[in-house]
Amino acid sequence: MSTSALTTSCPTSQPETEHVRLGHGSGGQLMAELLREVIAPALGGAELVEDAAALDLGPARVVLTTDSFVVTPRFFPGGDIGALAVHGTINDLAMRGARPVALCLAYVLEEGLPIEELRRITTSVADASRAAGVPVVTGDTKVVERGGADGIYLTTTGLGVPTADADPSARGARPGDLVLLSGPIGLHGTAILSAREGLGFEAEIASDTRPLHRLVAAMLAAGGRGVHALRDPTRGGLASALTEIAAASAVGVELVEADLPVPPPVAAACDLLGLDPLQVANEGCLVAVVDPAVAPAVLDAMRARPEGASAVVVGRVVDDPAHRVRARTLVGSHRVVDVLVGEQLPRIC
Amino acid sequence: MSTSALTTSCPTSQPETEHVRLGHGSGGQLMAELLREVIAPALGGAELVEDAAALDLGPARVVLTTDSFVVTPRFFPGGDIGALAVHGTINDLAMRGARPVALCLAYVLEEGLPIEELRRITTSVADASRAAGVPVVTGDTKVVERGGADGIYLTTTGLGVPTADADPSARGARPGDLVLLSGPIGLHGTAILSAREGLGFEAEIASDTRPLHRLVAAMLAAGGRGVHALRDPTRGGLASALTEIAAASAVGVELVEADLPVPPPVAAACDLLGLDPLQVANEGCLVAVVDPAVAPAVLDAMRARPEGASAVVVGRVVDDPAHRVRARTLVGSHRVVDVLVGEQLPRIC
Repeated sequence: MSTSALTTSCPTSQPETEHVRLGHGSGGQLMAELLREVIAPALGGAELVEDAAALDLGPARVVLTTDSFVVTPRFFPGGDIGALAVHGTINDLAMRGARPVALCLAYVLEEGLPIEELRRITTSVADASRAAGVPVVTGDTKVVERGGADGIYLTTTGLGVPTADADPSARGARPGDLVLLSGPIGLHGTAILSAREGLGFEAEIASDTRPLHRLVAAMLAAGGRGVHALRDPTRGGLASALTEIAAASAVGVELVEADLPVPPPVAAACDLLGLDPLQVANEGCLVAVVDPAVAPAVLDAMRARPEGASAVVVGRVVDDPAHRVRARTLVGSHRVVDVLVGEQLPRIC
Repeated sequence: MSTSALTTSCPTSQPETEHVRLGHGSGGQLMAELLREVIAPALGGAELVEDAAALDLGPARVVLTTDSFVVTPRFFPGGDIGALAVHGTINDLAMRGARPVALCLAYVLEEGLPIEELRRITTSVADASRAAGVPVVTGDTKVVERGGADGIYLTTTGLGVPTADADPSARGARPGDLVLLSGPIGLHGTAILSAREGLGFEAEIASDTRPLHRLVAAMLAAGGRGVHALRDPTRGGLASALTEIAAASAVGVELVEADLPVPPPVAAACDLLGLDPLQVANEGCLVAVVDPAVAPAVLDAMRARPEGASAVVVGRVVDDPAHRVRARTLVGSHRVVDVLVGEQLPRIC
């Protein structure tokens, strides 16, 4: 491979041995390069476009997804690393239109972690799993010496079964489709950052972490195969989610900035920190690309559930040979919505 | 819960806040206590006896297993962390009699890891996956800051489908059954320790890491439901594997020490280090508890494959209300084979 692809974010730096950088975990451009240049070529056929893989087992079809969670702090307004892992994995299955069936849980524990924290986090995993109706069926525990990890890392893997008569995919968007958003953006990322840095927004901003599989089931029941693409905009935010859909579907996306639901405390925190709310991680909302014929029914189904009560149309899919995501600004011009290059908020999930 | 259960290995220490200790990752008694006292009560129904969970999906039945790998050094005689993860996960499925179908791969990378090492490890994952015929279908990558991990940790999750007319389980051993071992013990643990500490055995001892699913398929074809229990004796070694089977099946096990295949360099390394070869981790052998009626056919099937070429009978299952594993020593007496209490070799896998 060419070494240049991995160093585009610092074009003036001296040639050097390549090393993993924090930006490689960003969900943005650097991470995409690491996957494209290093991991995917070595692995051959691994699925990179979707966050979950569909498998044909002969009599049955299943969907698999896996994610490690390294968020810091481990406990934050609105949730903790345990609930986040359960929700994140359930949501990755749901975005492929799968009904989550079972979870696996693997811990890497740092020597010295208070047992009480392990118990609290495991209880949170169990509570989230029970509330979602998706059991943890197997697990593993490893311990590393002091300094070999930061307290606790979790890896959750989810198994799901596809919903009949639905097949949402990042490749499914078509010009003319509407872009729906299930709720406000920017809460998780700003909640974590505020808790970590003591910015004082903790009273106003809580993570939106929650399971979205029931919302998705309602949407698929209402819209069926008219629901073309689903994505939970986690690392890299709405910008990364829509950019990935645009690239995979070979289309453009036009957002209307005034229609994006950014809660005032999130807007204030982003102003203070110089962040674009479109690039901030979410853990409890989804973006859907749907056929305009079914959009009203899907929107109604979303609004009938608490997770989708404030669902809105935020844009539409257009023909664009450059596969750009653009936003019509408040003053009527258009700006290109970029993905992050490197790391905005390390260890956000 | 009682706090005493977690501090039995240092009974004279002062009362203190409980913290995770390295011994909690040992595969021995402390780890069993952590699972029993902290993790299992919080999770409720999670499967603890087996290393993989069987699930009924309606038309199909699947088996799931997950493991994190934190071995140090990452590259060692006979393998590396990538191959080890693939083999370990495949073997956990095989021990439940499942045919491995797919793998998930999640990385936690430390900032500063040379990209070349990531590429080498990913290539090793891919090579092991290809050689075993079990594809990696999805994955995840997280990056933590320098000091937040030690280079790279992998979590692999495996999905398999059960073999018809076979159901090996740790609960399946019955008095009269024979205990078969597929090959020499102690190689992986002593190889890692020698490489880590520069003990000079590196030229003579290499890890036995390898996939065992084809060996298991041959054994099940020969012995069917007569293959009562299968276990790969990883962390905690043969002692932990047989102790778990004895406890789960409510039986005793009698080994014949003279029949245990301990390679001379392993015996020398264990002598030097004060280790019991029965407690040292393996990554490429299995122990099987089989009905005596099918034992000859199963043994023949094992010996017909390279992974089982040196398979031997090492003992038998007996009635024992205390569910002990005992070894008849070279001088004719019996000793109880204990499991490790705490940590013998941290980060062995």
